[in-house]
Amino acid sequence: MKIQPVIMSGGSGTRLWPLSRKARPKQFLNLVSDKSLFQETVLRLHDGGEIFSAPLIICGRGHAQLVADQLAAIGIEAADIILEPCPRNTAAVAAVAAAWVAENNDGALALIAPADHHVEDAAGFRRAAAAGAKAAEEGAIVTFGIKPTHPHTGYGYIQSADELSRGVYRVASFREKPDAKTAADYLAKGGYYWNAGIFLYHPKAMLDAFAAHAPLIAEGARKALAASAAENGARLLDERIFSQTPSDSIDYAIMEKTDKAAVVAPVDVGWSDIGSWSEAASDPEAAGHMMVDSENVTLRSDGPVIGVVGVDNLIIVATGDAVLVARKDKAQEVRALVDELKRRGREDLL
Amino acid sequence: MKIQPVIMSGGSGTRLWPLSRKARPKQFLNLVSDKSLFQETVLRLHDGGEIFSAPLIICGRGHAQLVADQLAAIGIEAADIILEPCPRNTAAVAAVAAAWVAENNDGALALIAPADHHVEDAAGFRRAAAAGAKAAEEGAIVTFGIKPTHPHTGYGYIQSADELSRGVYRVASFREKPDAKTAADYLAKGGYYWNAGIFLYHPKAMLDAFAAHAPLIAEGARKALAASAAENGARLLDERIFSQTPSDSIDYAIMEKTDKAAVVAPVDVGWSDIGSWSEAASDPEAAGHMMVDSENVTLRSDGPVIGVVGVDNLIIVATGDAVLVARKDKAQEVRALVDELKRRGREDLL
Repeated sequence: MKIQPVIMSGGSGTRLWPLSRKARPKQFLNLVSDKSLFQETVLRLHDGGEIFSAPLIICGRGHAQLVADQLAAIGIEAADIILEPCPRNTAAVAAVAAAWVAENNDGALALIAPADHHVEDAAGFRRAAAAGAKAAEEGAIVTFGIKPTHPHTGYGYIQSADELSRGVYRVASFREKPDAKTAADYLAKGGYYWNAGIFLYHPKAMLDAFAAHAPLIAEGARKALAASAAENGARLLDERIFSQTPSDSIDYAIMEKTDKAAVVAPVDVGWSDIGSWSEAASDPEAAGHMMVDSENVTLRSDGPVIGVVGVDNLIIVATGDAVLVARKDKAQEVRALVDELKRRGREDLL
Repeated sequence: MKIQPVIMSGGSGTRLWPLSRKARPKQFLNLVSDKSLFQETVLRLHDGGEIFSAPLIICGRGHAQLVADQLAAIGIEAADIILEPCPRNTAAVAAVAAAWVAENNDGALALIAPADHHVEDAAGFRRAAAAGAKAAEEGAIVTFGIKPTHPHTGYGYIQSADELSRGVYRVASFREKPDAKTAADYLAKGGYYWNAGIFLYHPKAMLDAFAAHAPLIAEGARKALAASAAENGARLLDERIFSQTPSDSIDYAIMEKTDKAAVVAPVDVGWSDIGSWSEAASDPEAAGHMMVDSENVTLRSDGPVIGVVGVDNLIIVATGDAVLVARKDKAQEVRALVDELKRRGREDLL
């Protein structure tokens, strides 16, 4: 069994403003540990070549150097780095990945994973991947159903059906982000899992699914890859072709339509998508911030020293040109600030 | 009648950190209006030469250029700028002022005022000064008793005795910062006023008081002024002499001992010493900060854009290298952060 890791690093992470910026989005920040989420993801899918091949990275055109630097810092060499000339959402990335693996890593399964998630138990995740591999080799498109710890309304859910093999189920349905009541119902009923947005598949299975459900995306992805050109030590997808490829999520374009969907569940590995500041950790003590008469405050800075007096339940994020102060349970609304900056044309702060 | 304004600009304003720094302390910041407190103070004691002469500025050695620039910006020329080679507190400044006025503005009264206070009604304050001038010409050392609006525990109080002339009283006693109960008693009894730290006197009256109560300070001040040297378009007090002059406040050294103290009261001009961030105003809207679902938040920045989400009752102050977030009623405790920075040797942030 061979698994080809494909790291999707094209996200923007606007809810992690002001630390997350276009030039250095969320996945390239050290939000949870002394490694970036991207580095954590690469290392999570690395086992010294036993099952996992060297990673394929797919990222935004502007991040080629950042990716190269962050890989070098952890001593990992990529199999290839593919640059997106423009964002085309996850369906096109999955199709590019399928085409690349079919051509470059014969017989391997593709495991595509967002670069901006955190997983506590990396070995546990690799075991979950191995558990799904047999179903994938038999043609299933395997998803990973995270064991829900609470009725989170910010995640999509996967409902499982009958068991295909030990710990792997047919998917009954994909559910979009639920309201609080629906989420509570899911947890009470059982058999509903958080959709981690990670997929394991044989290239042929995915390309067949694309042929059936989204042929234009598959064709655009294949041609853009075939016409790619070397740039900054990476491979730039053809801009004219890729920009005309339809933009859609893999969930909508394929997963909700195919009858090949399977789910490994429950996956209990301490997974989080670090969707907002309320899920990130404070800078370590060493960062030199100062707290007086304060508690339950998350402090992040890329330079400025932060001093707090008499406050609680806050997230404070400081950069040299922007500062965020948000109540912890309002961290999702940081997006409104980013929208306001866009309206004002403050590209310098985005 | 002539009055010589003397602007005491030597303060450090640590409770206004992180905007107030050694290189640009509180009095040189635009905290309440589009002018600095220093500029406001100079203009408050300016009437086109009718009663008030051109100001004498006494400031720290490092601020000569800042003072010159801020005076130029409001089109005021100083009579003289005296630089302190080291801080020696207000008694030495009052003695320097008396010696300078005796020598350079014959027959004028000296009005010495801290540069870091705010007064809403400048014309009202000039009327109060004129009201105290007769007593000062007759030998009184005149203070200004601000009409208290609430039992503030951060100010000293002046207790008035019998009336000397209309609106001018002998001082019964000076009271240090009271506890809350005592402050409430003062307001209930009446005849107690906030001590604004502003003094009006004839140079001879003050020099006589120094001769009686603090001769070493008077001698040091006189000699340091006589031995002063030109520096940066100003006059630097002799460092060796001034550094050996005793350091004391004018209140302790003179006012609590002399029987010449008088008080103009009640002075009702919207006075505040802007002692902490809770008394400062927000940046104007134009500064481009963003508030979502928040209220009663004071925002100050010398550059960084501030975005707040879901918070209230906060003071947020941002600079490129330091950020303060404090609950409004804890703003006094900012001093603890500054003390901590000193302990850590973070001179770059002080």
